[in-house]
Amino acid sequence: MKNTAVLRISCPYRKGTGTAISDFLCEYGANIIDWDEHLDNALDLLLLRVEWSLEDFVLNEACFRRKFGTFALRFSLSWEVEYCTKTPAVAVFVSHHLHCLLDLLHRYQTGELDCDIGLIISNHQSATLLAEYYSVPFYYLPVTPQIRAQVEAEELELLARHSVDLIVLARYLQVISAGFVAKYPLKIINVRQSFLSGFPAVEPYHEAFTHGVKLLGSTGHYVTPSVDEGPIIEQEVTRITYSDQLDDVIQKGRDLERIVLSRAVRWHLDHRILCYANKAVVFA
Amino acid sequence: MKNTAVLRISCPYRKGTGTAISDFLCEYGANIIDWDEHLDNALDLLLLRVEWSLEDFVLNEACFRRKFGTFALRFSLSWEVEYCTKTPAVAVFVSHHLHCLLDLLHRYQTGELDCDIGLIISNHQSATLLAEYYSVPFYYLPVTPQIRAQVEAEELELLARHSVDLIVLARYLQVISAGFVAKYPLKIINVRQSFLSGFPAVEPYHEAFTHGVKLLGSTGHYVTPSVDEGPIIEQEVTRITYSDQLDDVIQKGRDLERIVLSRAVRWHLDHRILCYANKAVVFA
Amino acid sequence: MKNTAVLRISCPYRKGTGTAISDFLCEYGANIIDWDEHLDNALDLLLLRVEWSLEDFVLNEACFRRKFGTFALRFSLSWEVEYCTKTPAVAVFVSHHLHCLLDLLHRYQTGELDCDIGLIISNHQSATLLAEYYSVPFYYLPVTPQIRAQVEAEELELLARHSVDLIVLARYLQVISAGFVAKYPLKIINVRQSFLSGFPAVEPYHEAFTHGVKLLGSTGHYVTPSVDEGPIIEQEVTRITYSDQLDDVIQKGRDLERIVLSRAVRWHLDHRILCYANKAVVFA
Amino acid sequence: MKNTAVLRISCPYRKGTGTAISDFLCEYGANIIDWDEHLDNALDLLLLRVEWSLEDFVLNEACFRRKFGTFALRFSLSWEVEYCTKTPAVAVFVSHHLHCLLDLLHRYQTGELDCDIGLIISNHQSATLLAEYYSVPFYYLPVTPQIRAQVEAEELELLARHSVDLIVLARYLQVISAGFVAKYPLKIINVRQSFLSGFPAVEPYHEAFTHGVKLLGSTGHYVTPSVDEGPIIEQEVTRITYSDQLDDVIQKGRDLERIVLSRAVRWHLDHRILCYANKAVVFA
Repeated sequence: MKNTAVLRISCPYRKGTGTAISDFLCEYGANIIDWDEHLDNALDLLLLRVEWSLEDFVLNEACFRRKFGTFALRFSLSWEVEYCTKTPAVAVFVSHHLHCLLDLLHRYQTGELDCDIGLIISNHQSATLLAEYYSVPFYYLPVTPQIRAQVEAEELELLARHSVDLIVLARYLQVISAGFVAKYPLKIINVRQSFLSGFPAVEPYHEAFTHGVKLLGSTGHYVTPSVDEGPIIEQEVTRITYSDQLDDVIQKGRDLERIVLSRAVRWHLDHRILCYANKAVVFA
Repeated sequence: MKNTAVLRISCPYRKGTGTAISDFLCEYGANIIDWDEHLDNALDLLLLRVEWSLEDFVLNEACFRRKFGTFALRFSLSWEVEYCTKTPAVAVFVSHHLHCLLDLLHRYQTGELDCDIGLIISNHQSATLLAEYYSVPFYYLPVTPQIRAQVEAEELELLARHSVDLIVLARYLQVISAGFVAKYPLKIINVRQSFLSGFPAVEPYHEAFTHGVKLLGSTGHYVTPSVDEGPIIEQEVTRITYSDQLDDVIQKGRDLERIVLSRAVRWHLDHRILCYANKAVVFA
Repeated sequence: MKNTAVLRISCPYRKGTGTAISDFLCEYGANIIDWDEHLDNALDLLLLRVEWSLEDFVLNEACFRRKFGTFALRFSLSWEVEYCTKTPAVAVFVSHHLHCLLDLLHRYQTGELDCDIGLIISNHQSATLLAEYYSVPFYYLPVTPQIRAQVEAEELELLARHSVDLIVLARYLQVISAGFVAKYPLKIINVRQSFLSGFPAVEPYHEAFTHGVKLLGSTGHYVTPSVDEGPIIEQEVTRITYSDQLDDVIQKGRDLERIVLSRAVRWHLDHRILCYANKAVVFA
Repeated sequence: MKNTAVLRISCPYRKGTGTAISDFLCEYGANIIDWDEHLDNALDLLLLRVEWSLEDFVLNEACFRRKFGTFALRFSLSWEVEYCTKTPAVAVFVSHHLHCLLDLLHRYQTGELDCDIGLIISNHQSATLLAEYYSVPFYYLPVTPQIRAQVEAEELELLARHSVDLIVLARYLQVISAGFVAKYPLKIINVRQSFLSGFPAVEPYHEAFTHGVKLLGSTGHYVTPSVDEGPIIEQEVTRITYSDQLDDVIQKGRDLERIVLSRAVRWHLDHRILCYANKAVVFA
């Protein structure tokens, strides 16, 4: 635990806003560790992320929310605060491809991801042993369109029981209903293939291979009720050549996916992402 | 002048094809410099590029075409040969953004591009002085939809007079008719912006900026009668961050464009590109 | 002209420093555009770059220096301020390879580099026409070890006469004396080849080619009296394969050099670089 | 098992060599799948990799070696052949950082690496459970300088017993004697950190961090008796910024290491690497 707090703010630009915030924090004993303030010229918005040590800070979270809430009204701030005093609980959803899950579990085990992976939910049984090896509870919940609503209800119940803060879709190939998504706003992260030319979503690797694209890409993004269109957190590409057969393309895609997904998860856990106007800004 | 010949072949895979070609070349004294042979498993096609020195080669181009033509029939080869004995003539089309043109002219002047830039055609006058500095004939041909057909006729006449082998669209922002394109099949190279998510083509930089993409891309491709959908030759990306304002994004895009375009042009001039099944394979 | 001021600060971390600076600026009417504040944990140093609009700011540069100087003493700040009210003057030094010079001139002409290239100095005559085309005064000053001291004196005189703020070594292959460098501390930018394994500096491309490196690199850095060891501003790499002959490697190196050098120059001109402890931190 | 054979050749360039080899293979019924032939102009060497299907090939390995051996003498060929008819056995050496080991085990399990990981040797016990999970025999062999010779003897005995074809040093931090290395020439692959500027090998991440490098690199290479100087197989870099603390730099380095190491291992297993003149050429 880092024992810090992170405040993320977006607001219409007005002179002195940053200074006022700085004064507020200082007054209560904040030792500021990072201060990223940026002006989006196009929208005339101030974007701010500040992280401070809680060591000498006199406001607990409830007090802070009350006092800062009043303050924020004066400056029309959209704001979020996180007191990093408890480890966030993460649920991973996975289907039968395990590369992203394994990657997350390894980073979790080595302490690179500052979270507690509380449960794994899958519509396949392939991850059973892996979950056991990493001592993470595993729930096998097969889905068909007919029972989706009922399965989602079970999933929501599990998520609530584990007090889950973040859901990671680690190559989970099932549709998730808008109702489900709405319960975890900007708290579901997905990874998907992407290409420099827009191909239809069905069988994208095959399409890309057929069209001879030279770069293969992957996008990590928040899931919003409109499928695959949530704010983009991270993207990465890798080069493919004529000697890459379809198998190679798929494997390179998987290497990308786990890197992109783990970065996105890490930035979320470090509260580095600020969403506004359907964009995700990463203060990394 | 390299005094080499390049043969590019695609054909249904049949045992012994490569060896038969090798024997054919060897019989007439070819010193083989590069031999790239590859099997496209998905289509069961043999793809081959071979370059040899003409020094001791006894067949001139006409003889080669006759003799190899007969040979090729037996093996159902699709083939192209280039005798690299004269410098190819290139025409550059440009509008008012000159970064790609300048880049090509510089590489041409330093000998990096093995070609002769014979003329520049533009619908603006902005490149006049640059053309003069590099001693390349410049033709100012403004276009409006009403006179497009007539201007294209003039252009075609100019291209014919300069015996142009390759047309490079270096940020030429005018529509080119399918009829024009059909006269230079796989001999027109264009560069366009690309993104990891498919945005509509109008104002792509602005769209990308609005959506908060993390990677900006550029694609160099052949122009076919179906606009912007010809075989992809090269793609490259660069990272953009929240501190990049729209101006920065546009500038990074321009840096990409000139790199991607110059690579595509170079590979074309070196006869490294083999097109089949609407794909461009680059033997680079 | 942007009509902004930029303040860069490094100082031992002490609580409230950022807030005090923010208060100071706010008191005199600063509209803050960018605020990047960061803690170097290893050295326990606060690093800060702040840019504000001068529109409503009541202190002119002289007043600011006086008042902020007093303030800075209290907090043991190392600080630099730039009022971006006049276009900085740049001198480019070049030898016979012109790719970096051309790139800088083009970016200067299109307004991408916010500077005035006031003069070009070369020990070769190859850039004469290019300088003329871009209407930049050109000084041909050949150097031999015997006359170096005298030539440097002439150069310094020229730089003084043109009130040069930044010297860019755009592939200038002459030794520059420590005395010369000392007159422009952190105001001389150079670009050099770099590799993932350390080869001796003589003929690095040939060495790299011989050793079969897979990535070719380039480093943009400040020149300090100890040659080639100044703070690193930017680095970039490109991939090379077995089909790249030495010529290709050299050309790819040149493409890197101009990109790396132009980025370094741009960040310097935008006052985005903060040097401390022989490191250059880029707030980009 | 792919049921193919791979022939790798380097030889002084002589006209007709490629054709003669092609004829030889064709005569015995080879269906050629890949043919990569390249001329190293600088050394005037022909480099060739050819892979063919064994389906209709009439020579078994012993026959091939005999017949081709005679043939090779006539053309002064340095050659190696691999009949890919049995899965190669791999030993992984590891110390206490397990990221590379885990990555290799996962790729092995999913079939991405065409090998059999026969044993894991470590001077720490940290990998015990992981080895068990993947059902790979694990040998704990602690080393001190005093007992190194004796431990190496044990290791060699284990490697022999498991008929190991390739040794992968997956962050194995012990010195390996020249005598040991000499027993597995070009059969030991290592991964190490690399930077664009050459820092001394002790604590390279710390050094790089101190010097403010912008790109972090990793090199996969064969181990030769001269430590860390064997032929380079693969290199990759990643960008680091001022907000990366030492921990972040180390983590990014680990991500690179596993990618670079797995690529190097894969290319080795696919017989895509040809070593000559202390260079490794990768036909990928």
